[in-house]
Amino acid sequence: MSVPTVEWKEGKLILVDQTRLPLETVFLECTNDQQVWEAIKNLSVRGAPAIGVAGAFGVYLGVAGSESGNVEEFFKKLGEVADYIANARPTAVNLAWAVERVCLRARENANGSVAAVKEEILKEAHRILEEDRQMCHQIGEHANKLLKDGDVVLTHCNAGGLATAEYGTALAGIFYAAEQGKKISVYADETRPLLQGARLTTWELMQAGIDVTLICDNMAAHVMKEGKITCVIVGADRVAANGDAANKIGTYSVALAAKAHKIPFYVAIPTSTLDLAIETGDQIPIEKRSDEEVTEGFGKRTAPVGVKVYNPAFDVTPHELIKAIITEKGVIYPPFKENLAKLK
Amino acid sequence: MSVPTVEWKEGKLILVDQTRLPLETVFLECTNDQQVWEAIKNLSVRGAPAIGVAGAFGVYLGVAGSESGNVEEFFKKLGEVADYIANARPTAVNLAWAVERVCLRARENANGSVAAVKEEILKEAHRILEEDRQMCHQIGEHANKLLKDGDVVLTHCNAGGLATAEYGTALAGIFYAAEQGKKISVYADETRPLLQGARLTTWELMQAGIDVTLICDNMAAHVMKEGKITCVIVGADRVAANGDAANKIGTYSVALAAKAHKIPFYVAIPTSTLDLAIETGDQIPIEKRSDEEVTEGFGKRTAPVGVKVYNPAFDVTPHELIKAIITEKGVIYPPFKENLAKLK
Repeated sequence: MSVPTVEWKEGKLILVDQTRLPLETVFLECTNDQQVWEAIKNLSVRGAPAIGVAGAFGVYLGVAGSESGNVEEFFKKLGEVADYIANARPTAVNLAWAVERVCLRARENANGSVAAVKEEILKEAHRILEEDRQMCHQIGEHANKLLKDGDVVLTHCNAGGLATAEYGTALAGIFYAAEQGKKISVYADETRPLLQGARLTTWELMQAGIDVTLICDNMAAHVMKEGKITCVIVGADRVAANGDAANKIGTYSVALAAKAHKIPFYVAIPTSTLDLAIETGDQIPIEKRSDEEVTEGFGKRTAPVGVKVYNPAFDVTPHELIKAIITEKGVIYPPFKENLAKLK
Repeated sequence: MSVPTVEWKEGKLILVDQTRLPLETVFLECTNDQQVWEAIKNLSVRGAPAIGVAGAFGVYLGVAGSESGNVEEFFKKLGEVADYIANARPTAVNLAWAVERVCLRARENANGSVAAVKEEILKEAHRILEEDRQMCHQIGEHANKLLKDGDVVLTHCNAGGLATAEYGTALAGIFYAAEQGKKISVYADETRPLLQGARLTTWELMQAGIDVTLICDNMAAHVMKEGKITCVIVGADRVAANGDAANKIGTYSVALAAKAHKIPFYVAIPTSTLDLAIETGDQIPIEKRSDEEVTEGFGKRTAPVGVKVYNPAFDVTPHELIKAIITEKGVIYPPFKENLAKLK
């Protein structure tokens, strides 16, 4: 990735505004928690790990300016900011996780001065960023073992470098394998309604010189039937203890098509995306988003005024459809319940 | 359909301008062949049966004003008008068929007066319109037997009244069942890339007061998993002797999802869509369309300049995924090869 997704620079959180890609490369400079909240809410920053990193820095920005030297008051404020940021996207477990992590670090240092606690929060946010970078590289290394020269990977949405601090999860293996000299091609689902595949995945892969073909979501099954795809790799926003994976709406459909064509379907995630407290995917709440994403998705209204719309942002792919879950700690095969539990 | 797609009224051909839907309901009043030619050319009227009907009336309008009482001169003019209209969309088989049909009727009555021949042409155009209406109603009647009160039908693309003179094929059963007092709801796939579902299917159903919810194509499997759908009905452009059905891209994906959720998947077609000369769907050629349909859906570029695109317009749903094929002659169940052959 030549353009960093999330960066901390001179007291500001710098985010590439992903809603403007691929036609414009615009950077958002966030200096307070509200700007970070909005960037997360509006999907200017998106992808579980990137949201987590942004959220951690967002918490810091929310308390950095608090002038009270009273530790108790500071922690009250911290709690409020943490809740606020975490609620920008309630389905994103990484966001809650990162926010909780900086809060925990703060609490562990509660006996220091307010200034010292702030410093710890910022350090922890940097640590999350750095760990994310490393984690992506490790996922790439493990995924690479599953990819052979000539493979054609179908992916849905964007779980590339733009979804993380760098390198990505679903795309990590592709970047890694390409760096190893393997020829890997990609089919990218456009990913309605917000077209992350069309806008971001194609852009990232083209930047890296990797062969990519854009299709509409509803073409994936047909492309598989034509024998064009050798495996599917997607990311996930949340994975339950049994391996059920919540990811961008449409993932489940791809998984069903992969199953029908006996094409291996892989989910690539950092282990932070694992939510072992949740037994199955049925317990994962599915965020519903606005009608306009569907009816005015191209900057022009394309459906009748007043039409009813259903716009779930995620779906859950049952573990039976998943061949393996690729993590920074290795490739996990079924039985997932048993093997995922060992990771934590 | 409360709004007729194609209608003959007081010597005028009235067409709803489908290029303006769903945001504006504008009627074109054609009083001469040039206006009909333009309406067909500009896709103001679309769908094979609707184009055929419009073309037949267009031929009448082209010769209605000819003042010569000389039969030979009249037939020369008729030939010119017929060629002109048929060339508005040279690949539309149905248009050529309808134009030829009114010309044939004229030739069969060549021994009468010019006025009498004109009258026969107009009558034949009405007959084509009426036959199309009846065919759709018969499909509706048969489809209605498969629908029960409270059913929720998922459909893909637009095979409604707008593609025919009235009532449609895939939507015919829904209109019919609603007229019988059954409460039927519909989920309409938006149908990328050209959004016929979002633009036309929702509009038609809303006009008829039928409950319709718009979703993106990639949400269909999830909506099925949530238990919201009781059956799927789609149209088809061509059905092979073994029941394999070519329809708008994305249909196959819906069929796979329906199978996975044990939801009956029906294809509704006039028997004219059956192509018994073709043994299986593998022999049906798949039209590839332009990159811009995917990358510049509706006036705004949403993918990087220079990205590779694959844009097949159709896919083939294998007969194993189809529970029944609904035709104007009845509901056909497997074995399709045997049972479809009996229809012709």
